[in-house]
Amino acid sequence: MGELIRIGVYGYGNLGAAIVSEVAKNPDMELAAVFTRRDPANVKVRRSPAVVHADSVGGWTDKIDVMILCGGSANDFPAQGLELSKLFNTVDSFDTHAKIPGYYKAMDEAAKSGGRVAVISAGWDPGLFSLMKLYMGAIIPDGRTYAFWGKGVSQGHSEAIRRIDGVENAIQYSVPVAEAVDSVRRGENPELETRQKHTRLCYVSAAQGADLNRIENEIKNMPYYFSDYDTTVIFVSNEELAANHSKLSHGGNLIHTGKTGEGNGQVIELSLTLGSNPEFTSSIMIAFARAAYRLSANGESGARTVLDIPPSLTSAMSYEDMLRNLL
Amino acid sequence: MGELIRIGVYGYGNLGAAIVSEVAKNPDMELAAVFTRRDPANVKVRRSPAVVHADSVGGWTDKIDVMILCGGSANDFPAQGLELSKLFNTVDSFDTHAKIPGYYKAMDEAAKSGGRVAVISAGWDPGLFSLMKLYMGAIIPDGRTYAFWGKGVSQGHSEAIRRIDGVENAIQYSVPVAEAVDSVRRGENPELETRQKHTRLCYVSAAQGADLNRIENEIKNMPYYFSDYDTTVIFVSNEELAANHSKLSHGGNLIHTGKTGEGNGQVIELSLTLGSNPEFTSSIMIAFARAAYRLSANGESGARTVLDIPPSLTSAMSYEDMLRNLL
Repeated sequence: MGELIRIGVYGYGNLGAAIVSEVAKNPDMELAAVFTRRDPANVKVRRSPAVVHADSVGGWTDKIDVMILCGGSANDFPAQGLELSKLFNTVDSFDTHAKIPGYYKAMDEAAKSGGRVAVISAGWDPGLFSLMKLYMGAIIPDGRTYAFWGKGVSQGHSEAIRRIDGVENAIQYSVPVAEAVDSVRRGENPELETRQKHTRLCYVSAAQGADLNRIENEIKNMPYYFSDYDTTVIFVSNEELAANHSKLSHGGNLIHTGKTGEGNGQVIELSLTLGSNPEFTSSIMIAFARAAYRLSANGESGARTVLDIPPSLTSAMSYEDMLRNLL
Repeated sequence: MGELIRIGVYGYGNLGAAIVSEVAKNPDMELAAVFTRRDPANVKVRRSPAVVHADSVGGWTDKIDVMILCGGSANDFPAQGLELSKLFNTVDSFDTHAKIPGYYKAMDEAAKSGGRVAVISAGWDPGLFSLMKLYMGAIIPDGRTYAFWGKGVSQGHSEAIRRIDGVENAIQYSVPVAEAVDSVRRGENPELETRQKHTRLCYVSAAQGADLNRIENEIKNMPYYFSDYDTTVIFVSNEELAANHSKLSHGGNLIHTGKTGEGNGQVIELSLTLGSNPEFTSSIMIAFARAAYRLSANGESGARTVLDIPPSLTSAMSYEDMLRNLL
């Protein structure tokens, strides 16, 4: 198998913890260190040989093959990614869809300047769903793809709420509109506006004395994340959040319906039923960390998306086994 | 958009006819010619500018960018593919799973000797299912993938029966065993032998005076195709075959179930509901013909599988649109 791929984890929240647990499932990898902006002495990480303050990350360039970025898109990524991608091969799950073209350009320049590979937006959406959307549309061009998420907690959306001044904690559920899913499955090819496909349900605990009206307005008007949806905000205590909203299960359906020949219907559907959303996202990032390592070892540099990367690079399987077992 | 990709179709059965109809859905491609071993004067092809005898294929090397091979795996491919891949970039849907490693090697040598790209086994299984099996296993390594096909007609299996001496026509249905699918979906992780997952149901019309016992035995003992399955052979007239078994609908489910973290279940499922199996297969081959063209234009040569090819090469979408619309 050769040398193990040395993985660094930058940021230790739900996603960072999931990376730590899932790297252990991949025998061709090892965890090198977890980086945190908190005091490392107060961050207990099972299975990590080192917990290091983020300020010291520059000293680790020759001890880490791929750094997995585990901040949230809303604030962390743009600055964090640019700096780190000059120093390390990186993988992130940047998920502010509308900003991805700009993020791609910036990361491409940064990664090239450091001679590194930066795989961006490699979660499940964007990420796995993007891959399937690409194949679906390439295979059945006379067709249309619908994406539904949930019911489940969206980490990116929950994190975006947590960044609002006066918010202590928040959990956001994306809820697909059942009538819309049914119509798509029946092949009715409906025109659906963003707000007809999903609703957003937010449970928020606020700091004492915080202006709840302001918080609710900031959530509902947040561009990209909430402004295009029917959003419900419910204020609850920290205790209720912990007791009733700590499950991180999720799910999603990507449905492509189209026609071939003289009107033969063709339906391709990818469905996900996820016991843990962050563990699933982290698992995808880890597979693409393997690809980033191989691309870099091959002398490549710059930003890459899941759409650019030869699928075989994500797998630990030998090519002979792929020919024998997958084809 | 630049110049159109000129597509040749080698072999004009169900699959060849489907390629002709589906190429027309792709504005970046044009059909150049259909090649047949029959008398071209007797082969009517709507939408093709030329119908040419297969013996003349050597004169078309500078008029065709990608040749799509539309024979059947059982006999046609090994010889046909090797010769054609020296002259043209090719795409095939070779589906004798157990022989793919050998076929890959032979096609790799042939294609390299001619400086061409040969994309092999690019149907839905092998092909799209192979891609998804790869991603599923790379993402959730502590898991297991189950594939179910049908109920539907398998072209490869039907064709294999038709090659038997004394058979006039045949239609083979693959039928998933419902109890097995249910058990997988419930996450029971069952051990299933080949014959516990599917049964095979064959409707066969035989020539007058043919030895039906011999035909039935040849079918049931055919390696790879039938010998590992509970196979039922029913002899019917040509008329009954045409009247009751001419629908080419199909379907399939690829289900990966696994665990992350401390036992969180994760399920990824790809499901296909196909109004026309040959049109769906042809649509995949066409998307990979686009990729073959681009790989070749990029100076590459040799055999490729769907697992090696950057996903973006299969799509006619611009990279800017991919970043904007897929990620």
